[in-house]
Amino acid sequence: MWLLYQFPLCPFSRKVRFLMAEKGLTYELARETPWASSDEFLDLNPAGTTPVLVDQVNGATLIDSQAICEYFEETVEQFPLIAGSPLARAEVRRLVAWLDQIVYRDVVAPLLHERMMKRIVHRASPDAGALRDAMRKANTHMDYLDYLLDHRSWLGGGTMSLADIAAAAHLSVADYLGGIDWEGHRPTKRWYAGIKSRPSFRPLLAERMEIVSPPKYYDQPDF
Amino acid sequence: MWLLYQFPLCPFSRKVRFLMAEKGLTYELARETPWASSDEFLDLNPAGTTPVLVDQVNGATLIDSQAICEYFEETVEQFPLIAGSPLARAEVRRLVAWLDQIVYRDVVAPLLHERMMKRIVHRASPDAGALRDAMRKANTHMDYLDYLLDHRSWLGGGTMSLADIAAAAHLSVADYLGGIDWEGHRPTKRWYAGIKSRPSFRPLLAERMEIVSPPKYYDQPDF
Repeated sequence: MWLLYQFPLCPFSRKVRFLMAEKGLTYELARETPWASSDEFLDLNPAGTTPVLVDQVNGATLIDSQAICEYFEETVEQFPLIAGSPLARAEVRRLVAWLDQIVYRDVVAPLLHERMMKRIVHRASPDAGALRDAMRKANTHMDYLDYLLDHRSWLGGGTMSLADIAAAAHLSVADYLGGIDWEGHRPTKRWYAGIKSRPSFRPLLAERMEIVSPPKYYDQPDF
Repeated sequence: MWLLYQFPLCPFSRKVRFLMAEKGLTYELARETPWASSDEFLDLNPAGTTPVLVDQVNGATLIDSQAICEYFEETVEQFPLIAGSPLARAEVRRLVAWLDQIVYRDVVAPLLHERMMKRIVHRASPDAGALRDAMRKANTHMDYLDYLLDHRSWLGGGTMSLADIAAAAHLSVADYLGGIDWEGHRPTKRWYAGIKSRPSFRPLLAERMEIVSPPKYYDQPDF
């Protein structure tokens, strides 16, 4: 059985959990608090980042969400999520990198800082300007998702891929933190309604971070 | 023939160029200035990041350094750089992600900002505190490279891999910008001397950014 070190609002852990669920893989959870890493955790991953996945049978340790997803793509045939020609696979990886790096940097990281870290750790109020900036950038990035979904059935092409998994991971965390305005983004909203009703994704939507609560519509497929 | 959009001190472009040279692939260069992206370039990559690689025969476009490296791993058999078992491949990808994300964020990005952007774009002096912080973190990260190289022939294991390529890309940019103190890092210094003498890497060391000059020893394999 795999043991996954994560915390409920870590988008990179959500990406791995969503992929594992789609591939029919089970795991146990170990809660890791990002602002107070345990020594045991830092021994596993000196970089201190979640997710970390440990094979409890042989102790094998996997670190970094993309390395973990590529590992399961190589070892589990069921439901391929980086599929097709090398060019099609490069397109999926381009979108995943854009989500994990640009969308995370512009939207998810500032929301986590302002609405989770400040609230839980610093007992401080969020900075209104930083929140406005993150939500403005979220809007621009969702315009791009709308554009992709106007031309394709799924974000990476004709079938569901790791690009959809990564987008759902980041958007769901931003949505939990009240950073997403769904108005004016019909294609992305319709796509996300489909994601929300997948049995593989529902457990993620049911989890709660202490102290910080999501908007009422957060876990409803019809929103 | 491939056309690569890049600039001389972009570590992600260096990673792709070093990999392509090791695999015996040739390319032409298109200079892209990161603080003044052309409309043509933003049409190619709305995210505005280098490198972007275009196949001039059929117009196929590859974006994101890791997506490009994975593409060539899948399409060019010669000199595999993500090799071995799935676990060994996950270890290479873990290190590449650590270099591209953590080492870039802590060391290379601040050095590029303080010593390139401020000099060329803002005509301002670097912030001494920010430089000290980047160099202190470089030192910590090189301790970890020393530790790896005390236990392995190459960073990712027994053979040269994409982890070595990525490390050389980031370290060489940091070194160009005067951010690396090689004293006290014998294993990493010896490893980098070997990298510097590779014919695939020498063209990168011969290039210069306008206005910003490297230290004297920068391109010497014996330093």
